[in-house]
Amino acid sequence: MLELKDDERLDYLLAEDMRIIQSPSVFSFSLDAVLLAHFTYLPLQRGKIVDLCSGNGIIPLLMGARTNVPITGVEIQERLHDMATRSIRYNKLDDQIEMKLGDVKEIGDLLHHSHYDVVTCNPPYFDTPAEDKRNENEHFAIARHEILCTLEDTIEAAAFVLKQRGKAAFVHRPGRLLDILSLMRKHRLEPKRLRFVYPKAGREANTILVEGIKDGKPDLKILPPLYVYDEHGEYTEEVREMLLGKGGNKDEPTEKL
Amino acid sequence: MLELKDDERLDYLLAEDMRIIQSPSVFSFSLDAVLLAHFTYLPLQRGKIVDLCSGNGIIPLLMGARTNVPITGVEIQERLHDMATRSIRYNKLDDQIEMKLGDVKEIGDLLHHSHYDVVTCNPPYFDTPAEDKRNENEHFAIARHEILCTLEDTIEAAAFVLKQRGKAAFVHRPGRLLDILSLMRKHRLEPKRLRFVYPKAGREANTILVEGIKDGKPDLKILPPLYVYDEHGEYTEEVREMLLGKGGNKDEPTEKL
Repeated sequence: MLELKDDERLDYLLAEDMRIIQSPSVFSFSLDAVLLAHFTYLPLQRGKIVDLCSGNGIIPLLMGARTNVPITGVEIQERLHDMATRSIRYNKLDDQIEMKLGDVKEIGDLLHHSHYDVVTCNPPYFDTPAEDKRNENEHFAIARHEILCTLEDTIEAAAFVLKQRGKAAFVHRPGRLLDILSLMRKHRLEPKRLRFVYPKAGREANTILVEGIKDGKPDLKILPPLYVYDEHGEYTEEVREMLLGKGGNKDEPTEKL
Repeated sequence: MLELKDDERLDYLLAEDMRIIQSPSVFSFSLDAVLLAHFTYLPLQRGKIVDLCSGNGIIPLLMGARTNVPITGVEIQERLHDMATRSIRYNKLDDQIEMKLGDVKEIGDLLHHSHYDVVTCNPPYFDTPAEDKRNENEHFAIARHEILCTLEDTIEAAAFVLKQRGKAAFVHRPGRLLDILSLMRKHRLEPKRLRFVYPKAGREANTILVEGIKDGKPDLKILPPLYVYDEHGEYTEEVREMLLGKGGNKDEPTEKL
């Protein structure tokens, strides 16, 4: 039996034939999480994955639909950790996905050093605002602003848990491009793949997807742009497939998604 | 009378109704120079422009067709400086464009500090190779490899000559994205506009265009992608206009190209 609390809803993850608990007043996942889950390299049979700043568990759930390797999510907010845990159980993925309640700044207390193959993270995007300008809803504020952890905290935590040659993928805003690339290099996560997401053709990019390799050699590739909407305001084929999808068939996985 | 030396040719710059001296064995301009000349902000009536690493003068010539402000080109190779000077004279732009023979590492000997509004630079792209692996043609080697100046030298020189709030535009390879952005910030040229050039849809970018503002605030925009060829292998409309163009009508200029 699934327990829904307060204004929580059980939403569909259509592409994966799964459900996820969301709450308009606490946390709903964004398209960015879906884009990141599809951008990242996924080991299919061997390896271990960590997702940092997991929120309601959207990225572990999406990845869990497409790989058999164990996934550990880390979330600092008890309420979100609880939502994620219930969603994982509801989708019968609790053998594969484990949620840890904790702080990425104390990642050594939660996870082993140099132990994981892939780390994903959709971190809070915004600088810490003055206390009175923060989003008044504390759950939103923590998820959106660098209150409990900064971009550098998440990059440092990713670098800490990754094996050599392990991969870390982040999603962020274009205004932080130089920061994220510099911080990744500073913490030994050499940026290797970068993709820009445009709301539609002719507009500026509003999202960046970047993957680095721990102790990789400098050799950055700029992938083809990803457009979210076409000229009619409909999702493009590529995004529609991520959202509505070809389903999450674990028996016939493709190595790169 | 125009004097052509050795294997030099007088090639057309179609869009601008101009001609330029090129030489297959010494220097021919690339599409990158054309892209940069169109990417950069051009002051039209007031201000002063500098082009560093000018080669045969392609960028000063293209900009000279579209603005009335004075342009100074800097080139270290005597042979290229001489080609540029003759092309400028042939196109009757010698009142507007001046070529300086000299080293960007000694830019203070050539140009005033904090004096210019715009700097463009299409620098040598490649790390300095071991002496025996260099391009055997010395002219090519100097133009293509960081032999006589590094990326940081050109950025430092641009920052030196620019006024506060002046703009510097560079073209480079995606593999150096993090370097160019970091070096720009290090030398007070805050990256503000970034555009990726793709040979065609579905391929990785092979060129980056970036503009920074001296002492600007961090706020990077990622412009829509620029595709060079369409699905039939023809130049796209946008590139065709740069190359074959709408002509360089100085009487009805547009502020941004």
